[in-house]
Amino acid sequence: KHYRDMQDIEFTIEKGKLYMLQTRTGKRTAQANVKIAVDMCKEGLIDKKEAVRRVKPEEIDQLLHPMIDPKAKVEVIAKGLPASPGAAKGKVVFSAQDAVEESKEGEVILVRMETSPEDIAGMHAAQGILTARGGMTSHAAVVARGMGKPCVVGCESITVDYEKEEFRVGDIVVKRGEVITIDGSTGRVILGSAPMVEPQLKGEFAELMRWADEIRKLGVRTNADTPHDAKLAREFGAEGIGLCRTEHMFFAPDRIKAMREMIIARDAEGRKKALEKLLPMQREDFIGIFRVMEGLPVIIRLLDPPLHEFLPQEDEQIREIAEELGVSFEELKAKVEGLRELNPMLGHRGCRLGITYPEITEMQAKAIFEAACQVYKEGKKVIPEIMVPLVGDVNEFRNQKEIIVRVAEEVMEKEGIKIEYMVGTMIEIPRACLVADEIAKEADFYSFGTNDLTQMGFGFSRDDVGKFVPYYIEKGILPRDPFSSLDIKGIGALVKIGIEKGRSVKPELEIGICGEHGGDPDSIKFCHKVGMNYVSCSPFRVPVARLSAAHAVLEEEEEK
Amino acid sequence: KHYRDMQDIEFTIEKGKLYMLQTRTGKRTAQANVKIAVDMCKEGLIDKKEAVRRVKPEEIDQLLHPMIDPKAKVEVIAKGLPASPGAAKGKVVFSAQDAVEESKEGEVILVRMETSPEDIAGMHAAQGILTARGGMTSHAAVVARGMGKPCVVGCESITVDYEKEEFRVGDIVVKRGEVITIDGSTGRVILGSAPMVEPQLKGEFAELMRWADEIRKLGVRTNADTPHDAKLAREFGAEGIGLCRTEHMFFAPDRIKAMREMIIARDAEGRKKALEKLLPMQREDFIGIFRVMEGLPVIIRLLDPPLHEFLPQEDEQIREIAEELGVSFEELKAKVEGLRELNPMLGHRGCRLGITYPEITEMQAKAIFEAACQVYKEGKKVIPEIMVPLVGDVNEFRNQKEIIVRVAEEVMEKEGIKIEYMVGTMIEIPRACLVADEIAKEADFYSFGTNDLTQMGFGFSRDDVGKFVPYYIEKGILPRDPFSSLDIKGIGALVKIGIEKGRSVKPELEIGICGEHGGDPDSIKFCHKVGMNYVSCSPFRVPVARLSAAHAVLEEEEEK
Ligand SMILES: C=C(OP(=O)(O)O)C(=O)O
Ligand SMILES: C=C(OP(=O)(O)O)C(=O)O
Ligand SMILES: [Mg+2]
Ligand SMILES: [Mg+2]
Repeated sequence: KHYRDMQDIEFTIEKGKLYMLQTRTGKRTAQANVKIAVDMCKEGLIDKKEAVRRVKPEEIDQLLHPMIDPKAKVEVIAKGLPASPGAAKGKVVFSAQDAVEESKEGEVILVRMETSPEDIAGMHAAQGILTARGGMTSHAAVVARGMGKPCVVGCESITVDYEKEEFRVGDIVVKRGEVITIDGSTGRVILGSAPMVEPQLKGEFAELMRWADEIRKLGVRTNADTPHDAKLAREFGAEGIGLCRTEHMFFAPDRIKAMREMIIARDAEGRKKALEKLLPMQREDFIGIFRVMEGLPVIIRLLDPPLHEFLPQEDEQIREIAEELGVSFEELKAKVEGLRELNPMLGHRGCRLGITYPEITEMQAKAIFEAACQVYKEGKKVIPEIMVPLVGDVNEFRNQKEIIVRVAEEVMEKEGIKIEYMVGTMIEIPRACLVADEIAKEADFYSFGTNDLTQMGFGFSRDDVGKFVPYYIEKGILPRDPFSSLDIKGIGALVKIGIEKGRSVKPELEIGICGEHGGDPDSIKFCHKVGMNYVSCSPFRVPVARLSAAHAVLEEEEEK
Repeated sequence: KHYRDMQDIEFTIEKGKLYMLQTRTGKRTAQANVKIAVDMCKEGLIDKKEAVRRVKPEEIDQLLHPMIDPKAKVEVIAKGLPASPGAAKGKVVFSAQDAVEESKEGEVILVRMETSPEDIAGMHAAQGILTARGGMTSHAAVVARGMGKPCVVGCESITVDYEKEEFRVGDIVVKRGEVITIDGSTGRVILGSAPMVEPQLKGEFAELMRWADEIRKLGVRTNADTPHDAKLAREFGAEGIGLCRTEHMFFAPDRIKAMREMIIARDAEGRKKALEKLLPMQREDFIGIFRVMEGLPVIIRLLDPPLHEFLPQEDEQIREIAEELGVSFEELKAKVEGLRELNPMLGHRGCRLGITYPEITEMQAKAIFEAACQVYKEGKKVIPEIMVPLVGDVNEFRNQKEIIVRVAEEVMEKEGIKIEYMVGTMIEIPRACLVADEIAKEADFYSFGTNDLTQMGFGFSRDDVGKFVPYYIEKGILPRDPFSSLDIKGIGALVKIGIEKGRSVKPELEIGICGEHGGDPDSIKFCHKVGMNYVSCSPFRVPVARLSAAHAVLEEEEEK
């Protein structure tokens, strides 16, 4: 008799992704579905496994987005189509470029007439997207759902004026820089910053998750760079941090200056001086995270992006920043030019930075271990795991490990504290998969960076992929976006080789994944099959991952 | 008694590359060495195999560079160090950027005080390099030798003035755009265009090469885009063209306009119109090449580079070209912006172009088959083999093959001619190696593009690699530049997987290599070991490849 209810969900599967067409209904129905499964189990009609099996991982995604506090009074100025669930707020920007720039200093909402592939980077950078035109399958809608980003489309009552950098609804004018809130679950556009409630794991939902945990074998960690995200993820059941990207910490306004001083320094001495300013800030970051993650492993990844990302690119800005830094325009301009690369994603980034500028690795290692000692002294258990990015050859790893271990021993000796730690690497360069046996001999653990592995394995730029991949999917050349769901046949084969080679020399090697795929149900099932120890994903995907990992076990049992 | 002579060669092996320190002596000695080996064999002192064994492939490189006609009267204005053998001439440019730009329209010589990693692209683009400072192991010298490019360094008598864009020697002023000739074998700098003689394969050298041919199992083809290069390579013993890059044909001044019209066209119709202008030109190119290569296979590769390479990038130029093309500045500017990519090497290039713009593939296929029919009618045997670049998935190949086969049949039907042809692919995307079995089912042949495979396999941008790879080599992190000599452990493992998978479904699959490594002795030995059918390299490397392929057999016999 309960079946009727379950079939009320309206969804569509398009190119391998499941879309809830009626997200409000979807949300309600997903909630109902969870409740029914748990109730049926409690009534003894089905067992826990069957209850878990009946709830699809894609479905609970609906339950995991922040929403506008239903009790709050808000000023709704317009209504569009609810294209991708969740609420988001931020300063209004009208171009992808502004979104990229300004998102470095705070949250932004990208407002466009409609979006096109050129806007992808800006969509990534924004908290949410609002368009005046387009339907549920418009570019903005499809891409935002793929990114899991709140999005309202087809909001026909607003008029966007790119020239004046403002949009109008009736008499109301919203200028660039003003804050709005959008609700991708209902289509509402709200003036100002609406109070939000974060989704919670409680009641039947929490119970079902616990049952999933009993079934699953894969660990579930989270990608988190701040204490806030780490805490959220922990509440969602994350068993550690699988990827803490340290570069985000350098973009804050008070820090980017020291970072820039470091970059423009003429020698190692100059770099060290600037890095000394960054050290206490990094240490604070790590202290915050270690505290929240008490007792759980925290994988901290060393600096990854190419340095020019920290420098201004336009002459005007260069002039400004040069003044701020007290160097000549020409000097800064020359530095910017010198760092410019034709293909930065294949350039001077990842461990290549730490190798050419060992001072950076030293500072980061010092910050990590000083933070660890501090939190340890507070009586909390800390489990730091340092991860070296973009390793393609074991010599790169050796070089960085030597620095990390040296600094770790120095700090701990000075503090008189002994903390267990690991030094591992990302496997995200195709070559690394082929020489993973050599790397595994030196590394304590490794984690597949499937974002870069997909990028390089396919030869698809993460930044530019909007130019032809949508066309590929439309034409059936690719079944779906390989950056969203792991390409098992090709990239998966590389991953398998990496695992086999690694375990051939170190059978107990701890192996995880921290690319975006770590939150995708199909990819998670693959990770289970190939024997990874854990997946790591963004906080809001943690419950999805827990459930997917359980489904992986159930499907395996069925196959037998 | 002959041994004494052979030990007179002065060379040094640095980071896996052999450098003749005294190139004049080197050249003479290499010649002597060949003569001695051949003579000893004829005298019955050693057998042919031993004669071949005694001449090292690296050594004969010395004999294979163009030199200034010894009988010509030339005006030597300065003398520097002979840093990399061979002679070259071209218009003088003073910056790497100018070298890149102006090399599209003719030969240039890059003149610098000294070079640095930022100049790599310019060095690549130039015919030869001249520096005022630096010794035999300066940046310019080492890099030029690596590239096999004529280079004179430490020419202290010249004064370079970047501002005025000129250099001076005594009273003589050479301005940007004036032609000079440099002789990297002697260090001479000559005003104007000196007459050159191209190296020839004759006498004992030719004889030794024939003996090498008797021993080797690998075929040797050439990378050539013009009838001139094809003819030269054939004289050097090339057994076909392994890679004819078609994009170079579009950079000529009379063609780039039509190419640009194609790119800015608003729809397929507009593109077709512009492509129709290119068709007869492409056909002429292919006719020339088919004639020269009569009776031998010619692999023609479809358009590969990202389209923005054909468009101007600076506002000033955009304005100029817009006028020329009869479109507004804004329209062209928008097009340029729209095509801009953050990582063009991982972007919209290779078969991705032919898939999104099938008209391009159609035009190219038509030009190839019309040319083939024409040459066939002249009574010459033509063996066209069309190669699809940058395939990562079999569906991409299928899509392009369908177009090629359809056009081929149409043209041949119309001409009433039946010509055997093959349609194959490059394996140059890491993923392609992992799915090579699927691809091999559809492809008639394939050729490893180890330039891109190295680029993506390592995640090293070909254009930016100067930023840290020299440092890596200095620090011993990498044994040598993986773009010069194949990284057997990593990229080689990918190649092996590709071969095994391909032959698992098609045991007789024809497999070659056409990356730069096809001319490198160690890489050639690897290609022999893994069972490739042929290597393809630039014309001047063909004899080196023939000898290396023979050495591969001899070494294998020794190992047994
Ligand atoms: C997790 C990864 O690192 P990032 O996305 O920061 O490059 C990855 O490459 O998969
Ligand atoms: C031969 C190749 O193609 P290109 O150098 O033109 O990219 C290659 O990638 O190895
Ligand atoms: Mg990465
Ligand atoms: Mg290539």
